[in-house]
Order: sequence, then C-alpha cells, then structure tokens
Amino acid sequence: MDAFEPKDPDFEKRVTRSFNRQKFMNLIEARLARVEPGFCEIHLPFREDLTQHHGYFHAGVIGTIADNAGGFAALTLMPPGASVLTVEYKLNLLAPGDGDLLVARGQVTRAGRTLTVCMTEVYAEKSGAKKLCATSLMTLIAALGRDEVG
Amino acid sequence: MDAFEPKDPDFEKRVTRSFNRQKFMNLIEARLARVEPGFCEIHLPFREDLTQHHGYFHAGVIGTIADNAGGFAALTLMPPGASVLTVEYKLNLLAPGDGDLLVARGQVTRAGRTLTVCMTEVYAEKSGAKKLCATSLMTLIAALGRDEVG
Amino acid sequence: MDAFEPKDPDFEKRVTRSFNRQKFMNLIEARLARVEPGFCEIHLPFREDLTQHHGYFHAGVIGTIADNAGGFAALTLMPPGASVLTVEYKLNLLAPGDGDLLVARGQVTRAGRTLTVCMTEVYAEKSGAKKLCATSLMTLIAALGRDEVG
Amino acid sequence: MDAFEPKDPDFEKRVTRSFNRQKFMNLIEARLARVEPGFCEIHLPFREDLTQHHGYFHAGVIGTIADNAGGFAALTLMPPGASVLTVEYKLNLLAPGDGDLLVARGQVTRAGRTLTVCMTEVYAEKSGAKKLCATSLMTLIAALGRDEVG
Repeated sequence: MDAFEPKDPDFEKRVTRSFNRQKFMNLIEARLARVEPGFCEIHLPFREDLTQHHGYFHAGVIGTIADNAGGFAALTLMPPGASVLTVEYKLNLLAPGDGDLLVARGQVTRAGRTLTVCMTEVYAEKSGAKKLCATSLMTLIAALGRDEVG
Repeated sequence: MDAFEPKDPDFEKRVTRSFNRQKFMNLIEARLARVEPGFCEIHLPFREDLTQHHGYFHAGVIGTIADNAGGFAALTLMPPGASVLTVEYKLNLLAPGDGDLLVARGQVTRAGRTLTVCMTEVYAEKSGAKKLCATSLMTLIAALGRDEVG
Repeated sequence: MDAFEPKDPDFEKRVTRSFNRQKFMNLIEARLARVEPGFCEIHLPFREDLTQHHGYFHAGVIGTIADNAGGFAALTLMPPGASVLTVEYKLNLLAPGDGDLLVARGQVTRAGRTLTVCMTEVYAEKSGAKKLCATSLMTLIAALGRDEVG
Repeated sequence: MDAFEPKDPDFEKRVTRSFNRQKFMNLIEARLARVEPGFCEIHLPFREDLTQHHGYFHAGVIGTIADNAGGFAALTLMPPGASVLTVEYKLNLLAPGDGDLLVARGQVTRAGRTLTVCMTEVYAEKSGAKKLCATSLMTLIAALGRDEVG
C-alpha cells in the first residue's frame, strides 16, 4: 500500500461529522474507532437484535459496516467540499459473524481523481480472539452534488 | 428464467419461519411480501433511523434486504432439512434510496445441487412511482450444519 | 429495461470500428453479431486453442467476451468523442463453456452521465441447443482521454 | 495471511501439469512463474495481438491471468484427486495494462473444505517499474467430477 496524503487537513473531523449524521449507524450503535489517511476502522458491539436465525451477526450488518469502513476510508482522501458515494461492492462471507464485537477495516487500494477502490476486512472478536469473517472489494465515486449516484 | 420446482412442498411456511427468526429483520421492520418457487420479495417501509447523511435509505439497509431477498429466493428451492448461506454478493447502487418504501426482489438464476446463483433488484417507491436503486448478483451454498459457511 | 436513445447517430459504425481495432478480438476470432442502442452481442466460434484442461472454452475467454459485450453495449450510448472504460466486473460461471459457439449479450441496465451499469449473459451453443454458462454485472466509466481508467 | 499446509506433497507438479494442459494459456504464451502453498504467480510477456484499441493489454487478458493465478493458488491446497473450479470473480481495473510484462499473483485468503476464496493482484511491468493494474476477489469450489461447475 502507498502512503496517502490527505487533501483536507481536517479529514478526521469531517469523517466523524459525516459518520455521526448517519442515523442507521446510530440505530445499530456502530462506533468510529480509527481514522487515518486512506484508512477507517468501525466497531460494532453485539446486540441480539442485530442477528440472523442462528444468533450470529446478520450478513446485512456485516455488509453495512464493511461498506461504511470502505466509504469513510475513501472520504479521508477527498478534497474539502467533495463527498463520496458507493458505486458498488462485492462481499465474500468467510465465517459466521460469531462474536461480541465486529471490527471492520477499510483500506484504500487506489485513489483516483474520480474513482476510489477500497478493500475491507471484517473480523468477529470473541473472548479476545479475532477471526476474519468477511472481505470486500469496492468502488466509490467522488461527488459534488447530493443527487448524483454514479 | 426457467420455472423452478420446489423440493419442499412447505417451502413458503419454511421461508416465513426462517424470516421471522431473523431479529435484524424485525429491528428494521422488513416484511416478507411474496414467496414463490425461486422468488422472494421483501418490503421495507421508510423510517428515519434507517437513513444515511442525506436522509435516504442507508446503502447497508439496501444491501441487507437485497441479500435477504436473494437468500430466501434460494431457500424456496432447498430440500427439507437443508438451509442456505450467502457465499458472496456484489451490489451495484444505481440511484439514491429515496422513497417511502424499499422493494427487493430476489430471483434464482441457476439452482445447482451445491450452489445457487440469484439476481436481486431493489426499487425505491415514492408517491407510487418506482425507481430501480440497486441490482445485485449473488452466490449461495446449500448447508446442512449451522457452522458451515462455505 | 428502458429503451435507450443513442446520443451518436453513428453509434453502430463507431462500435464496429472500435471492435475491429481490438487485436485480441482478432486473435480469438470473436465477431460483432448485433449492435443496438444499449445492447451488443458477440459470437465466438470454438477453437481448440481457446480451451482449458477439459476441452471447454476457457473461463478467461468467457470473461473476455462478457466484458466486451458489456463494454460495447455501453459505448452505443456514449456521445461522439467519448469512449468507455471498464471499471470492474463480476462474473459468475454457471456451467462449463461446452459448445461450438459462445454467444455473449451485453445489456445496459443504467446509463448515467459518468457511470454505466451493464448485465451480460454468455451462452454456449451446442448442436443448436443453447445453455447459459455465465452471467456478469459490470460498471463502466465514460472517458475522454486515453490514459484515464477511473 | 495464514501459512497453508498443502494436502498433496506433489502440488507443484500437479499445478504445472494442469497449467500446461490449458491450451488457451499456450495461445497467449502465459508462463507459470512461481508456485507455493496457497500462492501462484503467472507471467505474460507483451504481444501486439493481446491488446485492446489503445495498444495496452486487453482487459480480457488481464482477467484471464488473474482468474488463473487465483485458480492455481487454490489448486495448490487441494487433496490429491480433487480439482478446482471458478465459481465467480470480481475484477477491478485500476490502471491501463501498459507494459512489456503482466504479472498476476494469486493468494488464498480462506481455504475451506468446499469453497476457497482468493485475492489476485495484476501488475504491469514497464522498463523495470511495476504498477498495480487490477485486483480481484474470487470464489472457487473443490470438484471431483469434470462436469460439475457449482
């Protein structure tokens, strides 16, 4: 991975502000755990109402924080005024989301003027042990207006 | 699309039972709207706590019901006793999730002994008009035991 | 699917010209079979040097014409002067590429100003019978300069 | 990444034999450059008939060796007698395939009994400098019979 130079010195504040405006993140009680240039980590503590039929984290929840970790990783590198939208992502589920905490780590692979490509890994932590439960490859686009998706 | 022959005459009950056991579906108040052999439709009424920073349905919510619509479409074709797990999915976001209702339609493309491939479309309905906001291509695996993902 | 209005009345000539400049299409002897607004069909007759270890069409060959059918479907809707580049694609292989002819059909799902999303289906024809052997969901970007990918 | 233990001590011979039976690899003159447990590297020297309309490596060629590098990485971990089939892959094109050599590196991320997940990176080398031009996330399935895809 290259080291990335943020174009907005206030990137961390901006990511935090944007994260906090996502009401769905608040509903599921996801927290922003780490923000660095080209990187973002999100934590999600277990709650029974986030589960599927076997009592593990629901795949939709895993996908949600994977998508967000990648999206905010991309946002750290955007110039002031630009926002970022997910174009698409592909998520491989590798193991059940069995743990007391989900940890999603989004890392920018390539930061282009228009498009950004990220990888995300999601781990399930259980009694301290960490297991990779999903991996994702995603494409994002820099956006100026709010109605543009693509 | 081929017509699919369900291997379990009680497929509809089984899908309903499995859907109702997903506590995360209950949290976001998604409802099973239609179940047919190789097909499943899920509805999700708007709620403010399901939104991202612009007040539209969060991409994670869109991905969640896309994944579930495909998963339950696959489950309609499983023999009694078998369950189904998402191996991976790829989701393209085409337009903002701007509406009072999300409608996800999962359709089996290919039903193999081990693997099933589905397409899902997600529409945002607003004052009666419907707009395609996401499309997904996914792979699922038939599973007998509960700990097997892949 | 919507009906698409081409922005370039000469879209068919342009697609043909661009196809003919792809030397790799010439190497494998792929032919442009049908070009319509938002749609492109490519045919590829069997040759033994296009196979994998079981004597079927190689997955790389299937992916190649799937990618191209989608790319040229997108190109039919580009304004004069703009070209199109593949951002990413996801391909599901559904059955062996067992036949005397591969047929790839690319169809635009959404044509945006910047991004285009296509679906492609690849069929293997054998003694007249046609079998779906791959399906693909892809994202393309309109490009003005030749060095821009993303 | 974990260290992987091959179940077949002759994995390298087996990969080489299987690679050499792929006539399409021979047509494009791809070479097996490195084989390790859970890893495979493929090299492909530039040839004009492998190009798209700008004279760079064709995306189909890039996808072909990405798919193969991942597939053979998975094959290194298969027990004797089992083969491996690509279920699906998703490929992001990051930069033009501009170089005198393409290098594809496939790495197993998760090796399950039935399914294997791999990441592949493809680099274009030009006058010694190496640039990442594509990245891929793929799913493979262990197969015993030759007609089973999925």
